[in-house]
Amino acid sequence: MLGLMNASVFESFAIWGVLLIALLGLGYALFLRKQVLSHDKGTQGMQDVWNAIRTGADAYLSRQLKSILPLILVLTAVLFFSVYVIPPTDEALKRFSNFTPDMVRLIVGLGRAAAFVMGAFFSLTVGQFGMRMAVEGNVRVASASRRSFAEALKIAYRTGTITGMLTDGLGLLGGTAIFIIFGIASPDVLLGFGFGGTLLALFMRVGGGIYTKAADVGADLVGKVEKNIPEDDPRNAAVIADLVGDNVGDCAGMAADIFESYEVTIVSGLILGLALVSITGELKWIVFPLLVRGIGVLSSIIGTYLVKGSSKAGKGEDAFKSINRGFYSSAAISIGAFLILAHYYMHEWRAFFSVAIGIVLAIVIDEVTKYFTHTHHAPVKEIAGSSRTGAATLILRGLSIGLESSAWQFIVIALTIMAAVLIYWGQPVVFILYGVAMTGIGMLTLTGNNVAMDSFGPIADNANGIGEMAHLEPEARQIMADLDAVGNTTKAITKGVAIGSAVIAAVSLFGAFLTDVTKVQAQMGIADSLRLLTTGIRVSEPIVFVGVLIGAAVPCLFSSLMINSVARAAALIVEEVRKQFHIPGLMEGKVKPDYKKAVDICTISAQKELIGLALIAVLSPLLIGMVLRVEALGGFLAGVIVSGQLLAVFMATAGGAWDNAKKTIEDGLYGGKGSESHKASVVGDTVGDPLKDTSGPALNPMIKVINMVSLLAAPIIIHYRITNPGVIISIVLCVVVIFGAILYSKHGALSFKKKGETGF
Amino acid sequence: MLGLMNASVFESFAIWGVLLIALLGLGYALFLRKQVLSHDKGTQGMQDVWNAIRTGADAYLSRQLKSILPLILVLTAVLFFSVYVIPPTDEALKRFSNFTPDMVRLIVGLGRAAAFVMGAFFSLTVGQFGMRMAVEGNVRVASASRRSFAEALKIAYRTGTITGMLTDGLGLLGGTAIFIIFGIASPDVLLGFGFGGTLLALFMRVGGGIYTKAADVGADLVGKVEKNIPEDDPRNAAVIADLVGDNVGDCAGMAADIFESYEVTIVSGLILGLALVSITGELKWIVFPLLVRGIGVLSSIIGTYLVKGSSKAGKGEDAFKSINRGFYSSAAISIGAFLILAHYYMHEWRAFFSVAIGIVLAIVIDEVTKYFTHTHHAPVKEIAGSSRTGAATLILRGLSIGLESSAWQFIVIALTIMAAVLIYWGQPVVFILYGVAMTGIGMLTLTGNNVAMDSFGPIADNANGIGEMAHLEPEARQIMADLDAVGNTTKAITKGVAIGSAVIAAVSLFGAFLTDVTKVQAQMGIADSLRLLTTGIRVSEPIVFVGVLIGAAVPCLFSSLMINSVARAAALIVEEVRKQFHIPGLMEGKVKPDYKKAVDICTISAQKELIGLALIAVLSPLLIGMVLRVEALGGFLAGVIVSGQLLAVFMATAGGAWDNAKKTIEDGLYGGKGSESHKASVVGDTVGDPLKDTSGPALNPMIKVINMVSLLAAPIIIHYRITNPGVIISIVLCVVVIFGAILYSKHGALSFKKKGETGF
Repeated sequence: MLGLMNASVFESFAIWGVLLIALLGLGYALFLRKQVLSHDKGTQGMQDVWNAIRTGADAYLSRQLKSILPLILVLTAVLFFSVYVIPPTDEALKRFSNFTPDMVRLIVGLGRAAAFVMGAFFSLTVGQFGMRMAVEGNVRVASASRRSFAEALKIAYRTGTITGMLTDGLGLLGGTAIFIIFGIASPDVLLGFGFGGTLLALFMRVGGGIYTKAADVGADLVGKVEKNIPEDDPRNAAVIADLVGDNVGDCAGMAADIFESYEVTIVSGLILGLALVSITGELKWIVFPLLVRGIGVLSSIIGTYLVKGSSKAGKGEDAFKSINRGFYSSAAISIGAFLILAHYYMHEWRAFFSVAIGIVLAIVIDEVTKYFTHTHHAPVKEIAGSSRTGAATLILRGLSIGLESSAWQFIVIALTIMAAVLIYWGQPVVFILYGVAMTGIGMLTLTGNNVAMDSFGPIADNANGIGEMAHLEPEARQIMADLDAVGNTTKAITKGVAIGSAVIAAVSLFGAFLTDVTKVQAQMGIADSLRLLTTGIRVSEPIVFVGVLIGAAVPCLFSSLMINSVARAAALIVEEVRKQFHIPGLMEGKVKPDYKKAVDICTISAQKELIGLALIAVLSPLLIGMVLRVEALGGFLAGVIVSGQLLAVFMATAGGAWDNAKKTIEDGLYGGKGSESHKASVVGDTVGDPLKDTSGPALNPMIKVINMVSLLAAPIIIHYRITNPGVIISIVLCVVVIFGAILYSKHGALSFKKKGETGF
Repeated sequence: MLGLMNASVFESFAIWGVLLIALLGLGYALFLRKQVLSHDKGTQGMQDVWNAIRTGADAYLSRQLKSILPLILVLTAVLFFSVYVIPPTDEALKRFSNFTPDMVRLIVGLGRAAAFVMGAFFSLTVGQFGMRMAVEGNVRVASASRRSFAEALKIAYRTGTITGMLTDGLGLLGGTAIFIIFGIASPDVLLGFGFGGTLLALFMRVGGGIYTKAADVGADLVGKVEKNIPEDDPRNAAVIADLVGDNVGDCAGMAADIFESYEVTIVSGLILGLALVSITGELKWIVFPLLVRGIGVLSSIIGTYLVKGSSKAGKGEDAFKSINRGFYSSAAISIGAFLILAHYYMHEWRAFFSVAIGIVLAIVIDEVTKYFTHTHHAPVKEIAGSSRTGAATLILRGLSIGLESSAWQFIVIALTIMAAVLIYWGQPVVFILYGVAMTGIGMLTLTGNNVAMDSFGPIADNANGIGEMAHLEPEARQIMADLDAVGNTTKAITKGVAIGSAVIAAVSLFGAFLTDVTKVQAQMGIADSLRLLTTGIRVSEPIVFVGVLIGAAVPCLFSSLMINSVARAAALIVEEVRKQFHIPGLMEGKVKPDYKKAVDICTISAQKELIGLALIAVLSPLLIGMVLRVEALGGFLAGVIVSGQLLAVFMATAGGAWDNAKKTIEDGLYGGKGSESHKASVVGDTVGDPLKDTSGPALNPMIKVINMVSLLAAPIIIHYRITNPGVIISIVLCVVVIFGAILYSKHGALSFKKKGETGF
């Protein structure tokens, strides 16, 4: 079976077993959905607010689908025809030895295109279905909080778990299915799957990030700052857009992002595993990561089901304890099962240690993130303290803390790779790269729990917003406020894991890039001494260093454009909200504002900004690869990873720390709300918002998209020289489109002419 | 002669000629000094202010000397004894073949230690003498401005030229002298010279940066923001410290920084040139860079002497035109001479093109810097526009613009290296690296003019301050204000060149690192296939990637600590100034504040913060080299360069753009001074100040110090394995000292206990 001759009976069963576990995970998600939907939706007032949110969310989702669809279709065709540019691999010919080479080419082309569509569709499903469920859940949480804390907590967490299990289940299902069908020929097809997922995640992250912060910043600038009315005040025209935005950004964006890391680590794990299979002749190197993932899904099912409030009138701490209990139960079950796997199946411990280090890494990153952004620790206290000398010193402290955390996160990632080096000491490089991929697999073992914790955030936040707008009883409001606070913390923790896993995933993709290029070079008969894995990507080679420098430029440019996009979209919201405040009777609460208009502006802006940014991410590695060749492309990837990680952590940390510094001041420190300190901290929070929720998070999928494109394009780049007319035309096209995209993203041409007037 | 058998008569004369030109440059500096000192110092009131500045400057300089001296002594001994750890090179034995190996060891050891002292002393001289001259000049400019614009301009520019010619002359003198004495053995000794210069520059930059911004931010926060009194108001206790700070930062710091780039490009140029000599057997590869430098000195002498105001009552534009005329005259003379050199001496054009690209690069970087930070262009206008929606949006715009400029500067540097690749297409890597070094040489050809333009800034600024404090006539004040504005522009332009040249210098040091390590490996009989220049530094090797990541962490940590240091020192100033405002009669102008106290606080703070930061820069490459070995050390250097360049440009641009956005608003845009827009822009300026004048500029010497240390330590690292007890002890020591330094820098232990209270 599998085109792999030496699969043992256990192995054959195990792989099918993993497929069943993936389906089980999806079944569990459907079961939870039924459970959640069976709860009531509360009063008419609550349902009115909820309906507005739901309509806004639906509008965003359907318009997003519409604007993405053409690109998906074009890329599906590109991926299908790409097999006609270069011949199918020897592995593919071997796997499908019953067919003629032409037929094999067709099979691989169809497989790759189908896998791309599947990856894109799964990513979209995780984001969209998860977000729809979050919207269904929030009103039910609000209603349940009128009865009991325990019930509200349970509904909120289980709704989040639906997204979590979708992420797990679909990621595992796709990877395993491709592996079962294509066996040793699967790398080629897996790349399509990975690319589909990363590209959609990029869309969800970029679109979601712009939407959520345009609405948030826009609503705050006019509501809180100019008009001095509270958050979630129904008189603010952007308040529904803001609530929708929480779902769009934290739920859809984050879930798609983690799904993609989950998927990409499987892709690179299988590619590197297959390389080890061909070296050692042992199948275990690919079965192992699949089994690890299967164990993760099972233990997430058990762990997440354990989460429920203990008492009718609980507190935030109870919720936090219960969520943590679920997490650590899952972790314990996983580690136990990994031990059994290492002893009885692998007959060795190295792979186990790599995976275990992944779990340790997730915990360490959590702790580092917490240290720099949590109200209990020195950094946030220092930022809050610096508010007494005004906004400038507060901003400076935050920048300094963001940079410091970047430094430490670099060192944490470096130590992780170092661990893989030590574990596979003396083995060929491929083993070490495999070790890094396994660390990525390990890190995302508990994806079900992680995404559940993350989605919990916007669900609790929205429930709280509904409670506010529908004027619920104080007891219910207190319960929702407690849940909201818990959600803010769990959400922040997941952010660290998302960045960390993105970098580890990117590094293992980088590893896959090396082995893949080497394989292609071998098949082309390129001399051993010139193959990439032997010669390596030499940063000491000036042309490679050029690649590194250009690679480092991309995340800078990307972040800069993202910040501008948010500013531009927020300016439009500011204008709209200001205009609506002039509607007679609105300030007295007699007339309702037109929420839909603000929702529309956010939706359209987010979609418009998408295209330019996506083109830059997709085309820049192609351009570098074609002009500077494959070695420099490797340098380019290294540059992207380094500068992307630097900026992602810097922005996430500074933003999170400013946010929490503001919260501690609002809790009464240095004069509390309305004081000069508070005003300074609001400036910090407003600066931090687009950094931590838009440009920072968008760097995760960007890094991975660039790596995936490089992996896909590498064989073509190796095949054709720069003197080929097709290559020359492609280079010219790339340059034109990239510069066009930069100009478009920078000036946001269309319909944004008023930017000067609104001050952005 | 020179231990080089094949030197032609022309070449022998040429090298001695370069030495004479270096001395001529120094003579010109002394001649200008005499000229400047012959002018009068104005009224008693002016001299009082001037005396306060001079005393403050002297206090800083002598205390700095005292705190640096022990470290210099220790390092001199370390460098001397380093030759006893590893044997002298074959080249040294060949150069001094008349002596016994033991004697040669002694000669090289003494030479290296002496060169280190010379490098340090020269760097110190450029900084200290230049700064003393700036102080002598400012009062004379103030006095001359009462008579004529032309005279004031001439004195200010010529005072700046003294520092410029010192930078040129001393850099060339040291490099040429070492080359004449040590010939083919000079690389070893040159490293000592380079290290001395870079280390001192780091001290001057870090100390100067902290001093100037602590004084500036401290003075502004209490004076402008809290008390609403104008800049340079004599009632502000920190006003003298602020004026001293301008000299300490922009004059001493910048001059030492550029001196160091000037020196380091000679060092790497000669090392790489010697590698080419041994390949081609032609001496021209090392004579060429020396001749280029010599031409640069001569053309700077002519060009700078041409600068003088044309009329008695000129305007800022006249000054700018005149300074530019000088610059372009020098450039034209240089390029003409290079052409002659290429045709009649080199008999080929490649080296000429490399050098010419350096000049082009300097101009392009100028233009990019101007685009992003000048009031005439879109970025600054956008930042100013965003002030209308408050400080938060203004900060966001600035961050976005800073990131964008980082992206473009990366691409400019990448294209420069690409040009070297194309010029030496098909040649071994060493040629390309030599090309990059020549680009660095070319870029700094007009160092005399550049430093003159930079020093002009603080001189005009101080003259203006003296005018303000001594209540001079309105006409004179207008002249000084015009000169001050010109100085701000010329200063900003030099900043771009300083960063760009630092990166190019670092890249050519990186190239020197490669060839040097390969040479050591060859002498140790390490197989050809394992030598660094053959195998390269493979970023695809996980351990090298670990090095890259840790390298990228260092500039983040360094910047973060620098920002904190400034904040801490500024907090002390704020406290002091606030206290002094309570002195009875001070606000009415009846009693003078105690300026000396603020000066003391700045001086002491700056010195205290130095040590920790310097230790991190010096020890981190040693630690990485010892633990991860020489390949990973190469990766580390690449990481440092990439992340250092990213942050340096980001900080310089964002800071400069905020500064100018504030200026455009003060000139009347969006409500002018006192408006809400203006308040927002003051926040931006205050955030930007420590970024553009402290942490950003300090990254230039930091990058180069790390490269120099790696070059020096590489042979020792190759010689001894990690199992060696001495290495193990060194590793432990490094870890302990580095963590100690981080903690010390972070918490600034001693005497800074009050930080919580002052709000920083």
